[in-house]
Amino acid sequence: MKVTETPIQVRYQETDQMGVVYHANYLVWFEIGRTAFIEALGFQYHEIESQGIVSPVVDADIHFAKPIRYGEEVRVKTWIKDYDGLRVTYGYAILNEQDEATVTGSTKHVIVKKANFRPVSIRRAYPDWHHAYVQAMEADV
Amino acid sequence: MKVTETPIQVRYQETDQMGVVYHANYLVWFEIGRTAFIEALGFQYHEIESQGIVSPVVDADIHFAKPIRYGEEVRVKTWIKDYDGLRVTYGYAILNEQDEATVTGSTKHVIVKKANFRPVSIRRAYPDWHHAYVQAMEADV
Amino acid sequence: MKVTETPIQVRYQETDQMGVVYHANYLVWFEIGRTAFIEALGFQYHEIESQGIVSPVVDADIHFAKPIRYGEEVRVKTWIKDYDGLRVTYGYAILNEQDEATVTGSTKHVIVKKANFRPVSIRRAYPDWHHAYVQAMEADV
Amino acid sequence: MKVTETPIQVRYQETDQMGVVYHANYLVWFEIGRTAFIEALGFQYHEIESQGIVSPVVDADIHFAKPIRYGEEVRVKTWIKDYDGLRVTYGYAILNEQDEATVTGSTKHVIVKKANFRPVSIRRAYPDWHHAYVQAMEADV
Repeated sequence: MKVTETPIQVRYQETDQMGVVYHANYLVWFEIGRTAFIEALGFQYHEIESQGIVSPVVDADIHFAKPIRYGEEVRVKTWIKDYDGLRVTYGYAILNEQDEATVTGSTKHVIVKKANFRPVSIRRAYPDWHHAYVQAMEADV
Repeated sequence: MKVTETPIQVRYQETDQMGVVYHANYLVWFEIGRTAFIEALGFQYHEIESQGIVSPVVDADIHFAKPIRYGEEVRVKTWIKDYDGLRVTYGYAILNEQDEATVTGSTKHVIVKKANFRPVSIRRAYPDWHHAYVQAMEADV
Repeated sequence: MKVTETPIQVRYQETDQMGVVYHANYLVWFEIGRTAFIEALGFQYHEIESQGIVSPVVDADIHFAKPIRYGEEVRVKTWIKDYDGLRVTYGYAILNEQDEATVTGSTKHVIVKKANFRPVSIRRAYPDWHHAYVQAMEADV
Repeated sequence: MKVTETPIQVRYQETDQMGVVYHANYLVWFEIGRTAFIEALGFQYHEIESQGIVSPVVDADIHFAKPIRYGEEVRVKTWIKDYDGLRVTYGYAILNEQDEATVTGSTKHVIVKKANFRPVSIRRAYPDWHHAYVQAMEADV
């Protein structure tokens, strides 16, 4: 299984008055991990979008084990948990300097046409991308 | 079961280049619903925090059925799904003008001391709040 | 001069670890005021955009006199400071419960085609809108 | 005059339905530049805050010359425009891959006690920091 690790720059703006990173921001960090993962497969998400398709989230779950504070060095680990040719589920772990998985989660995505949000089959419309996903799930890396 | 409905003002800033509300913002809308729900129980979240406790999210899940666009009128429906004296799980549905539940989800919370993030039992430390939660789960409203 | 006052719902997510509203959020609040002002003139910003034009900010300035905290009731006062047929400058004041102008500022906007960001003259392309702006500057309200 | 250049990772979440980076996010990018600049002077903003002081913005101005799109590589250039022992004004320029200054601006800051937002003189309370600021303005780098 292919796994990428991407550094996250914790932004002061991401903290809240609890003194920790506001919980919704982890979905943004997951997205940074996902974009980097796709790039590691040889694709650029912004180029994919320029072809008139977008990849909305249909399901997300997050488990918050430990808060992250401003000033900490963190990174997001990303991998593919599931893929069926139509829907892809990414897994994520936010790691701190002690390599603890402070926040974990997953997001499930489909591909749709930007104009009408109609679903597109990755397998049929994007065979290169399809093969990259299949390989990423099987890879020994 | 007590249920509140709170209008959400969709902000232009919440859209992304897909032309729809960015998915992480639904967690912010859930929070607006949660705050209004707590207020409907007779409490003010900012007063609770001024006593040195905060209420972090420990688990969240979101299901995105249909995107929301800028200019739509939406509201968040909030209720208590589960409560055991220590942890409370809120349920949410984002409703559009056609009363469709476009996004649904839940968040589980604990109460901790702001200074050290040590858990506090709502039942023992905040009996009034505890009773309000129990009643809200049972209420015929 | 026409002036509108629009309530702002301070969101927990908008606070930072200083314990106050994060400064960039005031630009979002200004936008809420601006949208409500335009609506009070009889227009809907999302309908304007659906005609293929957008209204980017070209200049912004903000003066922060006093921080706003979560739990405060605030509103944004909006008016037109300047308008020349091409560029419009809105003025804003964030008022707290004591009617103090805690944050003030202005944003200057042009109208451009969404496809290529080429400027459009409001006076020539949108005469109704032009007249509404001129009246709003002169109005005795 | 000391100048730093810091890469910015443009986040999908920062775009809006105009298809460009939402204008308020530039204040967040300015902050990333400011934090990196302070670090280049040998200080850590989060350590400064742990001493019970914070550094709120009192004035900000931004000029938007050209929009930034998702997928672009950008960096923020930061320097000190003005400093009087009490207030410091940072200058910023957001540079794209063609080295164009797409967005420029400045933010003026004071230092206050977090507990009561009372001003603190940098010169008197933090002589090391004061000297670093003075040198940064004069530096031939």
